[in-house]
Amino acid sequence: MGADTRADIETQETTASWPLTVVSVDVGGTKIAVATVLYKHEGGAPSIPWKIEVPTKAQRGGDAVLETIVEAVREGMGHATTPVAGIGVGTAGRVRVDDGSIAYAVESIMPGWAGQPVKARLLQEFGIPLAVMGDVQAHALGEARWGAAQGADTCIVLAPGTGMGGGFICHGRIVLGAHGFAGEVGATLNPLDGGGAVLESVASGSGIEARYEDLTGEHVSGAEISHRAYEGDEAARKVIEDAGRALGIALAGWVNVFDPDVAVVSGSVTKAGVLWHDALHKAYEAHVPAVLADLSIVEAGLGSDAPLIGASQYLLDSLGMGGR
Amino acid sequence: MGADTRADIETQETTASWPLTVVSVDVGGTKIAVATVLYKHEGGAPSIPWKIEVPTKAQRGGDAVLETIVEAVREGMGHATTPVAGIGVGTAGRVRVDDGSIAYAVESIMPGWAGQPVKARLLQEFGIPLAVMGDVQAHALGEARWGAAQGADTCIVLAPGTGMGGGFICHGRIVLGAHGFAGEVGATLNPLDGGGAVLESVASGSGIEARYEDLTGEHVSGAEISHRAYEGDEAARKVIEDAGRALGIALAGWVNVFDPDVAVVSGSVTKAGVLWHDALHKAYEAHVPAVLADLSIVEAGLGSDAPLIGASQYLLDSLGMGGR
Repeated sequence: MGADTRADIETQETTASWPLTVVSVDVGGTKIAVATVLYKHEGGAPSIPWKIEVPTKAQRGGDAVLETIVEAVREGMGHATTPVAGIGVGTAGRVRVDDGSIAYAVESIMPGWAGQPVKARLLQEFGIPLAVMGDVQAHALGEARWGAAQGADTCIVLAPGTGMGGGFICHGRIVLGAHGFAGEVGATLNPLDGGGAVLESVASGSGIEARYEDLTGEHVSGAEISHRAYEGDEAARKVIEDAGRALGIALAGWVNVFDPDVAVVSGSVTKAGVLWHDALHKAYEAHVPAVLADLSIVEAGLGSDAPLIGASQYLLDSLGMGGR
Repeated sequence: MGADTRADIETQETTASWPLTVVSVDVGGTKIAVATVLYKHEGGAPSIPWKIEVPTKAQRGGDAVLETIVEAVREGMGHATTPVAGIGVGTAGRVRVDDGSIAYAVESIMPGWAGQPVKARLLQEFGIPLAVMGDVQAHALGEARWGAAQGADTCIVLAPGTGMGGGFICHGRIVLGAHGFAGEVGATLNPLDGGGAVLESVASGSGIEARYEDLTGEHVSGAEISHRAYEGDEAARKVIEDAGRALGIALAGWVNVFDPDVAVVSGSVTKAGVLWHDALHKAYEAHVPAVLADLSIVEAGLGSDAPLIGASQYLLDSLGMGGR
């Protein structure tokens, strides 16, 4: 149960006080970013005085990736200019909330990443508080606390990129859920289709590309489809409008349930242009009562720092030092 | 913004300590229940040593209903055997989180209830901490903290009765949202229908009755439709199966997003029999990954006390005395 696992995390203790540093890691399929995240005083905004990126070289397998992370964290520890309160990790794949291991990862992208005991290995090596979460969850928490939705109590983050992820913030804290798998918005039903298809198949970048190929026989990039849509290509217009419309209807459903302060959209699909944005907003407004129609739907503000800041924030939240 | 309004509630203070009583009110269209909710020690389970119900007589108008509530609370205060920490109210209609007034109520059922300054009026009269929320939100919090989902960190409560309400618990606390309108599950899209219909139109009791009437020309009660379904009436079977199936698919979507510890179903539709339950479970399992398929879907456990216990809990949570 989530309550138990949360208690497990919360029993971690730190002797650090402000100013403090969290060493934060963002593990992706192609690169691993490590940063020192500095908090000068209690409640103060984080800054990133030091950051590096190293190639994941995921095809070496999960064991090697984990050791690369250990070395990168070690380097980060050496660059901290204050006591280190702990380590925050946001990673590709689904993360078990109970032990911070990888429950699931796409084998073709990160072979052998599933099953890796990320938290246990880092704890063994460094012996300081650890918090491990999904990279989209980290991104969402970063944007909600310090980015485009700064200070929001309730916030929905939707991230249509190659895939389709999301994160939900309630009471100012990320919702991880019983297993740690909360935020799987891409796996929900495609609202344009009464059949079995999921939202990711229409609203994500890979979905847009696949649908365009179905219609035209051509496999081209999402950016090219956006360009063609702008120039009037009917098939391109349709798949981009459908992507925005599906996401807008899905968002409306979650807004009816969450009544958020703000919604954040991020990811490559948000660059699809005015056609996508118009379809998103129009569909959203058509599926909520008037009182919810003026919701702020904003674009992410922290760029690639969001997961680093989010994972760091989750570490502080888990220590009861996050201000929520 | 929710953050501000929550701060507003949290600035309320009480001098009470355990043992303590909360006077709790459940305002419905036909009756108003008032109870003393007793907590013997910190973290201890609530009990209800005293409770009354009075008719709402809603057709008198909202002003009269509010004065009936004031009198009932006064009587409750007189029955408290410990210091009173505050007053908790769960009420029909949508409640504004910022000022505890009624934003919206069905005019035919509770004329003039919309706009009533419930929190301000009770504060004026009694001058002690107040917490006002929707009745389904109160019901959900009661079940999540002390009922069928006791101790759950993340919990979804779905209440298909005459209408279709719900409540979401994250981090052990009810999600009210930016305006206070969170939990409007009935207003989300009917997943059986790509058109504009909402979940309430197929999954609620009134929806079941209307759809049966559409198919047969007969208007009969939900209980009678359940009975006919049991006896093999095809139209009855269809509308009941559709109701369970729609709710199961909708639940699957929210589980993908929330990953709850447990889901609670309550309300008259849950009495529709094995046909409904089977359809619900089957549809749910077909729309989640295997790891989420064994979710506990349980029936509510507190009966009509749930909203009283939930509103009381929200008062304690808002005072920082709720243990979450």
